Amino acid sequence: MSNYPDRVITSQSQDFNAWYLDVIANAELADYGPVRGTMVIRPYGYAIWEAIQEFLNVKFKETGHSNMYFPQFIPYSFIEKEASHVEGFSPELALVTIGGGKELEEKLVVRPTSETIVNHMFTQWIHSYRDLPLMVNQWANVTRWEMRTKPFIRTLEFLWQEGHTAHATPEEAENEAIQMINIYTKFAYEQAAIPVIAGRKSRVETFAGASKTYTIEAMMGDRKALQAGTSHNLGQNFSRAFGTQFTDENGQRLHVWQTSWAISTRFVGGIIMTHGDDAGLMLPPRLAPIQVIIIPIWKKDAEKMEVLNAASSVKEVLQTAGVQVKLDDSDLRTPGWKFNFWEMKGVPLRIEIGPRDVSSRSVVISRRDIPGKQGKVFGISMEPSILLAYVKDKLDEIQSSLLGQATSFRDSNIVDVSSYDELKLAISQGKWARGPWSASDEDELKVKEETGATIRCFPFQQPQGIKTCLMTGNPAEEVAIFAKSY
Amino acid sequence: MSNYPDRVITSQSQDFNAWYLDVIANAELADYGPVRGTMVIRPYGYAIWEAIQEFLNVKFKETGHSNMYFPQFIPYSFIEKEASHVEGFSPELALVTIGGGKELEEKLVVRPTSETIVNHMFTQWIHSYRDLPLMVNQWANVTRWEMRTKPFIRTLEFLWQEGHTAHATPEEAENEAIQMINIYTKFAYEQAAIPVIAGRKSRVETFAGASKTYTIEAMMGDRKALQAGTSHNLGQNFSRAFGTQFTDENGQRLHVWQTSWAISTRFVGGIIMTHGDDAGLMLPPRLAPIQVIIIPIWKKDAEKMEVLNAASSVKEVLQTAGVQVKLDDSDLRTPGWKFNFWEMKGVPLRIEIGPRDVSSRSVVISRRDIPGKQGKVFGISMEPSILLAYVKDKLDEIQSSLLGQATSFRDSNIVDVSSYDELKLAISQGKWARGPWSASDEDELKVKEETGATIRCFPFQQPQGIKTCLMTGNPAEEVAIFAKSY
Repeated sequence: MSNYPDRVITSQSQDFNAWYLDVIANAELADYGPVRGTMVIRPYGYAIWEAIQEFLNVKFKETGHSNMYFPQFIPYSFIEKEASHVEGFSPELALVTIGGGKELEEKLVVRPTSETIVNHMFTQWIHSYRDLPLMVNQWANVTRWEMRTKPFIRTLEFLWQEGHTAHATPEEAENEAIQMINIYTKFAYEQAAIPVIAGRKSRVETFAGASKTYTIEAMMGDRKALQAGTSHNLGQNFSRAFGTQFTDENGQRLHVWQTSWAISTRFVGGIIMTHGDDAGLMLPPRLAPIQVIIIPIWKKDAEKMEVLNAASSVKEVLQTAGVQVKLDDSDLRTPGWKFNFWEMKGVPLRIEIGPRDVSSRSVVISRRDIPGKQGKVFGISMEPSILLAYVKDKLDEIQSSLLGQATSFRDSNIVDVSSYDELKLAISQGKWARGPWSASDEDELKVKEETGATIRCFPFQQPQGIKTCLMTGNPAEEVAIFAKSY
Repeated sequence: MSNYPDRVITSQSQDFNAWYLDVIANAELADYGPVRGTMVIRPYGYAIWEAIQEFLNVKFKETGHSNMYFPQFIPYSFIEKEASHVEGFSPELALVTIGGGKELEEKLVVRPTSETIVNHMFTQWIHSYRDLPLMVNQWANVTRWEMRTKPFIRTLEFLWQEGHTAHATPEEAENEAIQMINIYTKFAYEQAAIPVIAGRKSRVETFAGASKTYTIEAMMGDRKALQAGTSHNLGQNFSRAFGTQFTDENGQRLHVWQTSWAISTRFVGGIIMTHGDDAGLMLPPRLAPIQVIIIPIWKKDAEKMEVLNAASSVKEVLQTAGVQVKLDDSDLRTPGWKFNFWEMKGVPLRIEIGPRDVSSRSVVISRRDIPGKQGKVFGISMEPSILLAYVKDKLDEIQSSLLGQATSFRDSNIVDVSSYDELKLAISQGKWARGPWSASDEDELKVKEETGATIRCFPFQQPQGIKTCLMTGNPAEEVAIFAKSY
């Protein structure tokens, strides 16, 4: 904390990108690694990732997946086996060519994703229908040689989980892909307070090697879209390329149907850019490493002891009840400095305790999500059960209030369009455009070229009624959402 | 399970190495990756690693360490900065030379360990004494280009945690290094039931770049030693190489004092080779992914339902109380086959429930660590509180019994020696030799050359009395332990 640089944070309206980088530096979420495009995830940022892991890991296990670990070095020849996969990933590969001082006979790919090596192993483990479904997940690092990088959002190396499953039927694989995007959606809404829009990617935007890609798309504070998680129905693309077959009940050899799905440290960037404001970070209580910061206030030395004692008991009460609480009893900074610092770090609730509070056996509690005096409540009793109930209640309120604010923001920035002109207008205003779409891949690429926007998804939640493609005037089955994106 | 190959496991006495590989294959702990020397950690093996992680992660946080993440790509020049570090690691490096389709200007090292990149970052975060101590840890993969590999024990890529700390004084660094080896020791004894010997490495065996290396050494079933965890006092070696300095209370610029410490997936290999027997794996209850396996037994279809119902309630009772329990209700295999299978998988307790047990409201419970009929107890009441108490009690008993057995085995295989001839005899008998040592590095290397044994450590627990070096006859301050090792 002593090296908190007391830097001003650029305002969002002035330069959203500068604001983002300022928050990351000031809140000590991440730092730049020595190799271009790499990122060091610092303890406070990593703690957010740990909270994400903790929640998802339980959900994955509840739905029958086991964790395991695949090696990160993949023979180059593997990547070449699935045609669209190699096309999608070959420009982004990091290659190991020297090992133990010697030039290698075959170059090794540092995994950009693991479908190929997973299939290589699955062929050895899957023999009959009794081995299916095979449902695994790994928490791992992956490497993609990105040219334009940004902490959390797009880095040369990042952390993620990648689930990989194999099934006996296409229906099961489809159900699995949908189940996992639903888990991500629920996680985004309920834990991260991010009202993502879940849907299907267009053919153009589908993962290299997948039959269908499902996605959750989040609107950031600058109204750009962030793809925050994906779930792929891989069909038989990889199983055909690798010969991943099983014998069914009738003794027939068939290729398995597969899925893969991932959420990465990019999600941390999504949290920052969804909830943050000009004062800094604002963390949803359910993922906040520190949910409550206690700041003791004293002027005279005589007051210090009793204030610190009271602060410690309050901490004890909350901690015992499972609240993530920290007491900032440092002598080095003033209370005012601490208020700003922990506000900037996005801690949902602040408890102040001064000599007068000690006398009245009460505390002052401020909400991070309501600025200034409106968010400040005096005279909350220190009586453990009352205080604890109040704190838990407020944390819940903040959690829903953040989701509510983000939802209003999102909804007020999505425009329903029925023509290409309307689409262009919406995009030029920085908004998302939603409109019926049944045009060609070429038309989709034309939109991208002319407006900078891409189809983020065909949302699962579709409006009723007859639809006419905004581009061609032909009948359309679905609306698509167009937006500029990260 | 259907692809359990029904292979026989080579007996330990016939070929310990073949036994080890058979157990790993049959128990589905790991498999070979496509790149030579790499390993796929399968769900059952990974679950043991997760149990290790869960325990240590809590201990690290309790002692003030924060998790974070450093990039795995390290500029080649970093490795060269600390002289003995480059000497130790350069033969083992994997190098990335191509990124995004282009030859890189500077080769990148895939981390073999992170001291160099950690120091590079520490120089940016540490300014004054107020920033110290800085205590972090990461769970990560590391790569070492090993020529002779063996699953878990020595693989080209492995998983580990690496702790890194920086302190203002040499005393603090020393205390930290000792604290961490003590945590590892306690973990080995109490969780893994492995009676490691903790001590200090000789100069020859000290980590490349450390001032002192502390180690825990475990005796495997073939009496070879396994270095199961290390904690290094790095002194100022890396801080001088990287210029990691702080300003003290008097305004003086000083180099920090550092430590690093690690436990890896190698530890899983140590568990296998400490407790396993000719029937397969034997897992200590506190790290076992499955602590209790329930096997329902029925002959007539009419019996099946009531037996399965009883088995399910027993499972429910144990699961609710936090016992890791699995019910193997598969129709595909006989009870006898299941007994062997779960014995081979090392599950500490087996509960059998047949029609007669259902009538008498009781179960049959067998211990994995006591072979045959002696380990089998009939008529344990199904009454939830009685059954649960019994199971918990037996799991505790097994935990201590495994530690007891391993301790007796260890102690009966360590010979106190007072001359080089005695040392040679002990080593030739496959035992560990413990004797006073104050000879030179050259003498130590001579022992290695002539006997194949190395100094595993100077144990913390030293015998009383005057000591005379077994090699030179000079006075010696300490006994050392010599052994052949993995």
